[in-house]
Amino acid sequence: MNVLVLNCGSSSLKYQLLNMETETLLVKGLCERIGIDGQLKHERSDKTYEADLPMPDHDAAVKIVLDALLDPSHGVLKSMDEIHAVGHRVVHGGEHFSESVLIDDEVEKAIEDCFELAPLHNPPNLTGIRACKHIMPGVPQVAVFDTAFHADMPKKSYLYAIPYALYEKYKIRKYGFHGTSHKYVSMRAAEILGKPYDKLKIVTCHLGNGASVCAVDGGRSVDTSMGMTPLEGLIMGTRSGDIDPAVVTFIMQKENLTAQETLDLLNKKSGVLGVSGVSSDFRDLDKAASEGNEQAKAALESYWYRVARYVGSYCAAMNGVDAIVFTAGVGENHIQTREEVCKYLGYLGVDVDSGKNNVRGKEVDFSKDGAKVRTLIIPTNEELVIARDTKLAVNNSKIAFSK
Amino acid sequence: MNVLVLNCGSSSLKYQLLNMETETLLVKGLCERIGIDGQLKHERSDKTYEADLPMPDHDAAVKIVLDALLDPSHGVLKSMDEIHAVGHRVVHGGEHFSESVLIDDEVEKAIEDCFELAPLHNPPNLTGIRACKHIMPGVPQVAVFDTAFHADMPKKSYLYAIPYALYEKYKIRKYGFHGTSHKYVSMRAAEILGKPYDKLKIVTCHLGNGASVCAVDGGRSVDTSMGMTPLEGLIMGTRSGDIDPAVVTFIMQKENLTAQETLDLLNKKSGVLGVSGVSSDFRDLDKAASEGNEQAKAALESYWYRVARYVGSYCAAMNGVDAIVFTAGVGENHIQTREEVCKYLGYLGVDVDSGKNNVRGKEVDFSKDGAKVRTLIIPTNEELVIARDTKLAVNNSKIAFSK
Repeated sequence: MNVLVLNCGSSSLKYQLLNMETETLLVKGLCERIGIDGQLKHERSDKTYEADLPMPDHDAAVKIVLDALLDPSHGVLKSMDEIHAVGHRVVHGGEHFSESVLIDDEVEKAIEDCFELAPLHNPPNLTGIRACKHIMPGVPQVAVFDTAFHADMPKKSYLYAIPYALYEKYKIRKYGFHGTSHKYVSMRAAEILGKPYDKLKIVTCHLGNGASVCAVDGGRSVDTSMGMTPLEGLIMGTRSGDIDPAVVTFIMQKENLTAQETLDLLNKKSGVLGVSGVSSDFRDLDKAASEGNEQAKAALESYWYRVARYVGSYCAAMNGVDAIVFTAGVGENHIQTREEVCKYLGYLGVDVDSGKNNVRGKEVDFSKDGAKVRTLIIPTNEELVIARDTKLAVNNSKIAFSK
Repeated sequence: MNVLVLNCGSSSLKYQLLNMETETLLVKGLCERIGIDGQLKHERSDKTYEADLPMPDHDAAVKIVLDALLDPSHGVLKSMDEIHAVGHRVVHGGEHFSESVLIDDEVEKAIEDCFELAPLHNPPNLTGIRACKHIMPGVPQVAVFDTAFHADMPKKSYLYAIPYALYEKYKIRKYGFHGTSHKYVSMRAAEILGKPYDKLKIVTCHLGNGASVCAVDGGRSVDTSMGMTPLEGLIMGTRSGDIDPAVVTFIMQKENLTAQETLDLLNKKSGVLGVSGVSSDFRDLDKAASEGNEQAKAALESYWYRVARYVGSYCAAMNGVDAIVFTAGVGENHIQTREEVCKYLGYLGVDVDSGKNNVRGKEVDFSKDGAKVRTLIIPTNEELVIARDTKLAVNNSKIAFSK
């Protein structure tokens, strides 16, 4: 079974085609500037094809992707029939979905119901789904939600302490994101440790430009640091993460901003970018800090400290921890981040082998041999999980139909 | 030395008179409805005096307090000269004060500079100070700040990840509150444990109607859960504590509220009151929960869980913990709260003796004998710390003058 994995943004479309018998990547690519002009970057293992192509809408972009997949020169397929399913990354599934689902009208409606909760993500996600239905009628489409892995967390984790009527009326609660990544790396950690997933307490740290920590207790997400939106929790590239709620209204009043402008400031101009005044990129922060930039140093130290505090809080949430996993851009590649976060955690039994930690983007247990709590780097692979879930959802629906 | 301790609210004035040779309470009382009509409750160990007395302003209230202290029937002093100093609780000291200070014009100005940061508290605090200066000229006045104990916390703890310019321009940062209480109970814990204060890692949980957790490392507050305002952190009686910052703007937009109205909702209608829909009082919550009220149960479980997560995060902040202290109304009196919070913390070496925990308002180490991490109840005594600090500040100023 070949699965096409799509991640649609408002003006972009990322794709990967995977062979799910062998779980191998056949080709990947990116459409950008959809609705503006249109650029395609299409990467096969042996060659890269780039072209400016008109993409007035997502329908056009999906057609261009299919053309690229079928192209005799840089493609990988002979016929459209070789695409057996499409897996869509959908950011917000609200309270509806705790697993991936075959998309029908009802699912589309549910994705639309979450527009308010994820105004930047769900609308383009749905646009991509509708484009595929239009261009590839008859090919099963599966929605894989960023929120699904967290959907079963307990009430004490997801309720905010606001009037309960506001939860009932607007579904204001913690949802959490990066679920596909937290699920993948926690499952992989169990495999690496050679222990049953349902017996392990794992804290997973997805540290990318967006970042979140997750408490995975016996294979279930029981808490995570992102909230109703991806703004809550850790300090991120450009997002503030946790702040006194009164800071929101204070900034609004002092700077004479609207609610939306304040939200933009907290989402786009804050985080390590805001504190450092330099950049959201850790390579730039490292350079600035090494040149003596005090704000860059403060940004890094605050970032590490916040991650450590979240790890500590999730150890309490699970009453213990067996393994701590680092993944995503910063988690996989920024050696010092792992080192500094783990320095706080000796009391848990964390004991890092600095030699083993001195790697980037590799799957490794970087604990010292006798360490009670294992520390791991596991490069995330969200597309693979989406493809696996897509395959599973399609097969399950076939079983259901055959009954 | 007799010290009069004052805690002025917008329409109230709490007082205690302490003999600081013996550290004994001579008398305490409360003026209420200042600016409305006026009520006095004055409690000597042997008798209570209550009266409706006109209190058009804080000057009038201070005069009434002095009259009560000097009254032949229910007073404790023969002459005003027997009041040697006044210690004022001041909520917000901003970045100015890391310890208690003798009040002069500069200090008054600094308290005024913090009006914006504590609009409900600092103005009446200053009104009380000015009333005392007016009615008791020549008696040294000392300001004891709720923020002072936290003033030396590291930058990584107090910075919010917002644009640094906003910190510089408006001093938007974490300040923390309940400092007097956290200081007192952490010092007392060291005494009870018979270990040097500067060698201990203590997490103090001040759980009252307002509530905060503090990480006290070697006698210094290195982090605390309240922030720029008392809204951040734990779930409280009526305050939300931590929420996704995007929830603030979401509620504002959906409910069509102003910034101030939203803040009021989060400060006054949220917390366990908001979730339960029942009450902010734990006795009412217990009753409702025992009668099967699911929201009341959810409020309690969320409350305990949040405290446990903060304790866990501060263990990470200090890379370990020796003792966990519970204080204030809920912390001292709500047996189940201590029990439930500690259930999360077995991984740290917390081990509770349920028999020893089965007390209210008593100073006790309720850990099992061999427990690695000690758990203590220590009734707080903010007035005593204010009086001690006042005595110290007055004596230090005498030394400074004599040099």
